[in-house]
Amino acid sequence: MKVIVIGATGTLGKAVSNELAARHDVIEVGKHKGQYQVDLTNSESIKALFEKTGKVDAIIATTGKVHFGPLTEMTAEQFKIGLHDKLLGQIDLVLIGQHYLNAGGSITLTSGILTEQPIRLGVNATTANAALEGFVLAAAAEFSHGIRINIVSPTVLQESLKSYGSFFIGFEPVAASRAALAYSRSVDGIQTGQVYRVW
Amino acid sequence: MKVIVIGATGTLGKAVSNELAARHDVIEVGKHKGQYQVDLTNSESIKALFEKTGKVDAIIATTGKVHFGPLTEMTAEQFKIGLHDKLLGQIDLVLIGQHYLNAGGSITLTSGILTEQPIRLGVNATTANAALEGFVLAAAAEFSHGIRINIVSPTVLQESLKSYGSFFIGFEPVAASRAALAYSRSVDGIQTGQVYRVW
Repeated sequence: MKVIVIGATGTLGKAVSNELAARHDVIEVGKHKGQYQVDLTNSESIKALFEKTGKVDAIIATTGKVHFGPLTEMTAEQFKIGLHDKLLGQIDLVLIGQHYLNAGGSITLTSGILTEQPIRLGVNATTANAALEGFVLAAAAEFSHGIRINIVSPTVLQESLKSYGSFFIGFEPVAASRAALAYSRSVDGIQTGQVYRVW
Repeated sequence: MKVIVIGATGTLGKAVSNELAARHDVIEVGKHKGQYQVDLTNSESIKALFEKTGKVDAIIATTGKVHFGPLTEMTAEQFKIGLHDKLLGQIDLVLIGQHYLNAGGSITLTSGILTEQPIRLGVNATTANAALEGFVLAAAAEFSHGIRINIVSPTVLQESLKSYGSFFIGFEPVAASRAALAYSRSVDGIQTGQVYRVW
């Protein structure tokens, strides 16, 4: 299978690319690095990416920015960061990418444990994650022509503890390689509309 | 209690205002009608509203637009309708309104059955609703100074069947007056972080 990984240069994306490269042709896409570049907040950039890669069998996104900050001081402009980047970025990848998927292809997005387990300063992340899981539920039901769509919800990664560990006190981290298995389950499996929790 | 109902001129909002007016002072707010007007997609408009009303004990939103259309033809611009109107509109009401709530005050938002039960053409609605429920989960945990926040998820209303019935074939409708009870439970009750399903 020809698998495109958006966010392939990040901590999680690298592990996902490694995991999938054992069986598939992986196209590694980053924002500034990788084989190709894409800006998911820009529809034209997404279209240009697929025009370069041609049709694929699986689309994976392991990327997306959210805003961390106290709810009592948050503004709508700050809130838009997660809505436009992690949320709409991944959704627009689906809206455009669906037209570049081969028959029986799959899409796998990324939410995170904060959907269900909120942390201090994380309301923007929880909101974006919950929206993505809702999107996948509805999209899986509406895709009636063989396209599957799932989402992986990892907890904090062992490799990210230096950067994010202070947000996730008491959370048991997982290795990126373990989180990556869930993407294989989505790409190589038969399910659709699933949230694969890795925690 | 002084209760402000945003969307009070709509089908659900009217029933909520009636239900709450039996015990509380209700300020009815619409987009074009009502005692005051507000545009929830505009932070300045929300601030101006609260400057007029002064502090309140409960904030309720029963409003929000989403885009209905086929996923296979949807664009990011169409998807933004639900994200900016129903989703960010209600969230910005919280971000600003929290500063105009009296001690022990409450906020009650509105999602809908599509969060969990998707329908054809409804992916934008499911996404916005799921995001709002996620937001309420995280916000309730982060509000540590006595502010409560809940969300009501009604199914299709009997009064709305003429407009929306064709989207909700097989769904059992409820009277707006029954859905309105859930808002009383939120305003007059003690819970926080709850999704009150009326279906």
